[in-house]
Amino acid sequence: MTADAETIRYRAATGDTPAAVDLLDQTRIPAELERLVCESLPELHDAIVRLVVRGAPAIGIAAAYGVTLAPVDSSASPENVRRCYYDAIEYLATSRPTAVNLFWALDRMRGLVEASTDETIGDLPRRLIDEATAIHNEDRSMCRAMGKHGATLLGDCQTVLTHCNAGGLATAEYGTALSPIYYLHEKGHTLNVFADETRPLMQGSRLTAWELSQAGVPVTVCTDSMAGSLMQRGLIDAVIVGSDRIAENGDVANKIGTYPLAVLARYHDVPFYVVAPTNTFDLELESGDLIPIEQRSEDEMRYTLGADSNVHTKGRMAVPREASVINPAFDVTPAELVTAIVTEQGVIKQPTREKVQQHFAAIQTPAS
Amino acid sequence: MTADAETIRYRAATGDTPAAVDLLDQTRIPAELERLVCESLPELHDAIVRLVVRGAPAIGIAAAYGVTLAPVDSSASPENVRRCYYDAIEYLATSRPTAVNLFWALDRMRGLVEASTDETIGDLPRRLIDEATAIHNEDRSMCRAMGKHGATLLGDCQTVLTHCNAGGLATAEYGTALSPIYYLHEKGHTLNVFADETRPLMQGSRLTAWELSQAGVPVTVCTDSMAGSLMQRGLIDAVIVGSDRIAENGDVANKIGTYPLAVLARYHDVPFYVVAPTNTFDLELESGDLIPIEQRSEDEMRYTLGADSNVHTKGRMAVPREASVINPAFDVTPAELVTAIVTEQGVIKQPTREKVQQHFAAIQTPAS
Repeated sequence: MTADAETIRYRAATGDTPAAVDLLDQTRIPAELERLVCESLPELHDAIVRLVVRGAPAIGIAAAYGVTLAPVDSSASPENVRRCYYDAIEYLATSRPTAVNLFWALDRMRGLVEASTDETIGDLPRRLIDEATAIHNEDRSMCRAMGKHGATLLGDCQTVLTHCNAGGLATAEYGTALSPIYYLHEKGHTLNVFADETRPLMQGSRLTAWELSQAGVPVTVCTDSMAGSLMQRGLIDAVIVGSDRIAENGDVANKIGTYPLAVLARYHDVPFYVVAPTNTFDLELESGDLIPIEQRSEDEMRYTLGADSNVHTKGRMAVPREASVINPAFDVTPAELVTAIVTEQGVIKQPTREKVQQHFAAIQTPAS
Repeated sequence: MTADAETIRYRAATGDTPAAVDLLDQTRIPAELERLVCESLPELHDAIVRLVVRGAPAIGIAAAYGVTLAPVDSSASPENVRRCYYDAIEYLATSRPTAVNLFWALDRMRGLVEASTDETIGDLPRRLIDEATAIHNEDRSMCRAMGKHGATLLGDCQTVLTHCNAGGLATAEYGTALSPIYYLHEKGHTLNVFADETRPLMQGSRLTAWELSQAGVPVTVCTDSMAGSLMQRGLIDAVIVGSDRIAENGDVANKIGTYPLAVLARYHDVPFYVVAPTNTFDLELESGDLIPIEQRSEDEMRYTLGADSNVHTKGRMAVPREASVINPAFDVTPAELVTAIVTEQGVIKQPTREKVQQHFAAIQTPAS
C-alpha cells in the first residue's frame, strides 16, 4: 500500500501545528483517495462513527492515538491532567459499541494514565504517544503472524469468499481475514477471492475489492445473496472473515451477514475460518448472545449511497416512508459453526470454551 | 391498488390512437408513480429488459398484449400477416430468458396465429386481444386462488419473510408469494412481513415494501444478509417466495438469494413456501440445473442506484474498475428444501417429481 493509502498515520505536534490522527477516508473509496486529518477529539469521534476509519483493529489504533488529542492544559494540576485524559478515553469509548479492540486499546492507554505519578506526569504525553505507536506496531506484527498461521489452512484452496472488509484498511497492515491471502500471494500462491458487497455500506465491493485489486489479487464482487449459489456450484473452497468481538466460548460477532455464511458453509461442507488478533476476545463474556450489537442509522438503508463520493450522502430513496427498517451492524456466529479461529498466536480448531482458555493460558505462560 | 398503480393496462386502438401496453414504471417506485405507454414492440421489449414491468406472471401478460402491437399491414396476404405475428412473438421471447411464463403466454398467442385460416385471418387481431385479456383475467383469478390455498399454510404465522417482489406488481393482482398475505389481511389476520431488500435492484425494499404499505400490511425492510440472524432469533415463522420457473421435479428458480434463504430456513426449522401459478412449471425440464439463468449487466452492481428516480441511472461507483463482477439474476432451490409449492390448483407438500406429475394429472382430468 502506498503512503497515501496508509490507513492511519499519526502526526506529532510541532511548533504551531497541533498533533493529529490522519486517516484515509474510507467513506470515499474507491471513487476517491482522500485523507481526513483529525486534530480534535470530536473530529476523530465523528470519523469513527461515520466509518472514515473502521475495522476492529483500526478503530483501536485510531482511538489510542486519539487519546493524545485530549485538550490538556500543561499548566494544570496532575489531577486535572489525568482527568482530561480519562474524559477523552470515556468519550472515545462511546463512538462504537461492538468492536472490543476499541475498549482494549483505550484500556491500555488508561493504564498509563493511572500509572502516572505527580512526578512523572510531565512524561505522560510522550508515553501515551509511545503506547499508541506500540499498539499500531504490534498490530502490524500480529497481522503478519495471522497471515502465516492462516496460510496453513488455505494451502489447498483456489478460491475463497470473504465478507465486509477485514484487510489492510481494517488494520495497520495486511489485515485479519485477508492476511493469509496476502501472505500466500507473496509466496506465489494467488487465491481467487469472491468479495461479498456487504450491504448496506458496501465495505466488500468498495474496500475489499479495492485493496485486493491494488495488491494484484484477483477479486470478484458478488451480492451478499449470491454466496449460497456459489457454494452450491462448488466454487468456494473456504469462507474467511474477521471479527469485532469473540466471546469466551468462541462465539464470533462480525459484520451482519456473517452468520448466514457460516450456516451455508456448514450446509455445503465448506470450512469457515475467522481471523482475529487475541485482543478481539472478550473473555468476560461467556457467550456471544451477551455481545452488544450496534444498531446503525435507518438512513443507511433508506437511501442508496449518494452519487457524490461520500458514502453517507443520501442518494435515491430506496424504501418507502411508510415501511420500517432494521439496521443491525453485526450478527453472532456460534462457535460450533466455526471451523477454526486464527490469532497471531496460532490456530484454534473447532473452538470451544476450553480451547479458548487453553489458547490464552499458553500466551500467559509461554514455553521457555 | 388504485387505477394509477395498476401494473399493466391495455389500450385498444381507436381512431388515430394506436394500441398500447400501458405499464406502471417499476424502475421509479417508490420515488415516483409514473406510467410508461408502449406503442411499439421495441418499446415494450426494452421495458421488459429494463424491468419497467417484471415478475414472471406480469412479464407473460405484458408480452401477450405486446403481440397485438405487431406492425401488421392489414392489406398483406394472410401468410404475411401470420409471419408478422410470428416475428413479434420471437422478438418478445428474447427479452428475458428465465421466467417461463413469458414463453407460456407467447405460446398461447402463437396457437391462435397457427389456428387462423385464410378465411378467419381478419378476425385474428381481435382474437389476439381477447386471448391476452383472457391471460390477464386468468392471472387475476389464479392469484386469488393461490392466496386462498396459501393462507391454509400461514394461518398460525405472525411474521413471514419474503424476497424480491412477488406481489401485485409482479402479477395482474394480489401476487403470488404475497397473495396469501393479502388474503389473510382481508380476513382480519394481518401478518408482519420482513422484506429482503433484494440486491442489486432492490425489488424488495422498493416494490414489496411499497405495495404492502399501500395495502396497510406492516412491513420491515432488511438487507438480504439479515435474514439469517432474524431466523436465529426466532423471529420468522415462514419464508414465502414466488418463482420464475419450476422444473418437473419441483426444483425452483427464483431471484438470486432465494436458495440461501431455503438453506437457512431448513437449518432453523422454518417452513419454506413457494407460491406460483401452474404456468410457472416447465415440465420439459427434468430438474432445476437445466433452467437457463439470466446474467444481467455488470453496471447493476458497479454503480449504486442513481439519485434520480430511475433505477438504471448510474449513481456512485461502488466497485473499483479493476475488480470483476458477477450478476446472475436467479438461483435454483432444490425441491428437497421446499416445504410446499402453492399453485392456483392447491398445495404440493414436500414436492417430488411424482407429486408434481400427480398435481398436473389432476388438472387434466378434473373430478366431475
